[in-house]
Amino acid sequence: MQIVKENGPITGENIAERLNLTRATLRPDLAILTMAGFLDARPRVGYFYTGKSGTQLLTENLMKIYVKDYQAVPVVVRENVSVYDAIVTMFLEDVGTLFVVDENGHLVGVLSRKDLLRASIGKQELNAIPVNIIMTRMPNIAVCERDDLLVDVAKNLIERQIDAVPVVKKTATGYEVIGRITKTTIAKAFVSLADDE
Amino acid sequence: MQIVKENGPITGENIAERLNLTRATLRPDLAILTMAGFLDARPRVGYFYTGKSGTQLLTENLMKIYVKDYQAVPVVVRENVSVYDAIVTMFLEDVGTLFVVDENGHLVGVLSRKDLLRASIGKQELNAIPVNIIMTRMPNIAVCERDDLLVDVAKNLIERQIDAVPVVKKTATGYEVIGRITKTTIAKAFVSLADDE
Repeated sequence: MQIVKENGPITGENIAERLNLTRATLRPDLAILTMAGFLDARPRVGYFYTGKSGTQLLTENLMKIYVKDYQAVPVVVRENVSVYDAIVTMFLEDVGTLFVVDENGHLVGVLSRKDLLRASIGKQELNAIPVNIIMTRMPNIAVCERDDLLVDVAKNLIERQIDAVPVVKKTATGYEVIGRITKTTIAKAFVSLADDE
Repeated sequence: MQIVKENGPITGENIAERLNLTRATLRPDLAILTMAGFLDARPRVGYFYTGKSGTQLLTENLMKIYVKDYQAVPVVVRENVSVYDAIVTMFLEDVGTLFVVDENGHLVGVLSRKDLLRASIGKQELNAIPVNIIMTRMPNIAVCERDDLLVDVAKNLIERQIDAVPVVKKTATGYEVIGRITKTTIAKAFVSLADDE
């Protein structure tokens, strides 16, 4: 590594020469260092030092986890259902966030347990209020897409102090809701990092 | 690494000999491989191969994150407060879970947004019901301690489908609540792995 660090890019042959070793003897070591990410190799150029520490390599692994790898199924309600029915749906479906869609199936709002709890201690009859009165509405909704990094969605959840974001597909007429990422999703990804091999 | 793999434990001197190098020349390389976790060294014994891949080293990093590194301040209520007051406390303190304590300050229950939402769509007057009627009570409460691994708490949150656990200190008479770990805590730890250097 010292040789590569100081002289890279350098061919395997040149490294072997400097160490008084044959190329064959050196090959397994170079392979391990390359696999581990400490060195990188380019055909016809040679080895160079990536400058990466163990922690940086961990970070890179995290940067390969996408929304699509972890997204869960979304639960949606129409904007004219009552707050009471939305609460019942939340319990039946056992989710903490509902996404609200219009008659074309496009995202128009989000309902969290917090929103519903706030409404439920109000003076109004829960059967009489439609969810579109109390929901967080577009364009104030955080969304994500299948190819976003999960870590960026996690940052967004923390910053906005929300429990979930819908995974959407942009269409000419609006957002189609195709999944959900929740804090539970993030916890699962966190645990899976520890369970890998 | 090949030499250590086949002959370990082996002293630095012996490795140097086999490579026709001086001990001094070899030292930086051995240091890097040891720091990276691929080799381990024991005084008066020598170097040996840890057999760990890059992914295993990532996992080990995760195994160094403890509850005490991330725990947040707990919000507690007494068991005789009304459900209505508990909901108000939840909004004022901006938390998703309250811990319920008895007159000695010992943990007796947990109240989630879900518990409070369920109660709020019931027929009862929220001002008239004390929280100890609707709370999850001991011994059915998941708890953790300062020195537990964060990843184990994350697993527990996922398995039990809960949002938070209290960090407790065991005393002769019961559990004292000294912190909280929530799904937000886990998301923060997840993000911090990506933000490290």
